[in-house]
Amino acid sequence: MNCLIIRPEDMREDGLVDVSGASFRHIRDVLKKTVGETVCAGLLNGPLGEGRIIGMEYDAMQIVFTAGAMPDEQRIDLILAMPRPKVMKRLWSAIASLGVRSITVIGAARVEACYFSSHALDEAIYVPRLIEGLEQVRDTRLPEVRVFPDGATFIKSHLEDISEDSLKLLAHPGASSTIREQSQGLTNQRVTLAIGPEGGWVEDEVKTFAAAGFIPATLGPRALRTDTAVVAALALMG
Amino acid sequence: MNCLIIRPEDMREDGLVDVSGASFRHIRDVLKKTVGETVCAGLLNGPLGEGRIIGMEYDAMQIVFTAGAMPDEQRIDLILAMPRPKVMKRLWSAIASLGVRSITVIGAARVEACYFSSHALDEAIYVPRLIEGLEQVRDTRLPEVRVFPDGATFIKSHLEDISEDSLKLLAHPGASSTIREQSQGLTNQRVTLAIGPEGGWVEDEVKTFAAAGFIPATLGPRALRTDTAVVAALALMG
Repeated sequence: MNCLIIRPEDMREDGLVDVSGASFRHIRDVLKKTVGETVCAGLLNGPLGEGRIIGMEYDAMQIVFTAGAMPDEQRIDLILAMPRPKVMKRLWSAIASLGVRSITVIGAARVEACYFSSHALDEAIYVPRLIEGLEQVRDTRLPEVRVFPDGATFIKSHLEDISEDSLKLLAHPGASSTIREQSQGLTNQRVTLAIGPEGGWVEDEVKTFAAAGFIPATLGPRALRTDTAVVAALALMG
Repeated sequence: MNCLIIRPEDMREDGLVDVSGASFRHIRDVLKKTVGETVCAGLLNGPLGEGRIIGMEYDAMQIVFTAGAMPDEQRIDLILAMPRPKVMKRLWSAIASLGVRSITVIGAARVEACYFSSHALDEAIYVPRLIEGLEQVRDTRLPEVRVFPDGATFIKSHLEDISEDSLKLLAHPGASSTIREQSQGLTNQRVTLAIGPEGGWVEDEVKTFAAAGFIPATLGPRALRTDTAVVAALALMG
């Protein structure tokens, strides 16, 4: 944790912030901070700033938060065919640390329907993991998460809502264009990136995405596993 | 598994290849291949090609391997400060899938010495994981692995052996150059990439690397966790 994220429920009526649990132990035992010292802190979906420790007990501390600047807005929207739940659980914090505006998890022809009953998609699981990713990289903007088990319906009815200003990329092995090429010079460009399941998108899915303006692009000749592919593609988007 | 890797010990004297265990079950149950059909196969550190199934029992199959072309040579050498053992275990297959010539795991000022007694660094742990990564991406070239618990000695005495032809990059937060910039147009360039521990390299380490010709370069303002940083940096090296 490089920056404490303060959630609304951590705020007391008197304006102080209660810090307990893993965050408290990290600040006390790893950062070795004590009363009077400051730590990097930020309000969830709000400004970054600093927290001054003004009280510490054996299991909690109180800090005063002073707001600084808002972190930069993210410009990447990720559409992700649901991977194996174990992989999805691991991906939340990595995705948040790489910086995206939103994560839309969808079903697809090659996604097992049972994956959607996994608790990897429960808010109670993914919100703490997303916050962990934000705390790693000093960001406060929580990605918006949407889940559509019925991927076919999603890609037929929701792809058209995506802003015209967004560059739309469909990660697809064997495409003639590469994600590396497409990601050149994208400094301020909004991007919507759709990454398929382990076995790839099926022909029908590729057609529907293409009809909605998505450009198929490959990560290269190596068919990476989903978790590696997601991190690699987001890194290339920069 | 997208391509079966055949190890020397799988080769019988009569030239047939025995396939058992997880590879056997994958070919039979996931790929649903049977006698007379072919699968992608490759010899460890040798050519890719195909395997024709000529016999199948309840727990093993025999294939005849026909060699094709050698996969491309890798051009990236990775020097990695030992991460937490759990992270290292997960990284082996990801690193192999992204393609490197060698992986040198070293100690560093901010690496706990006890990490080196972990079995994450046992050949019996990492070779199967590296092969799993190769099988994912249809590569056969096993990265060479070296381990130097004494990082200070390594960087003082081994950095100078690195070929002059290699672009040498030191991943370092806050560097003025970025890994993205440094990785532009590197199509055939050999690269040696050194990635530090969670807390970064210490000043002395940065100086020693710099004296050996390493250019400090950052992955950007976000201080990613080691596992995410390794995948992101290798993806950018392309």
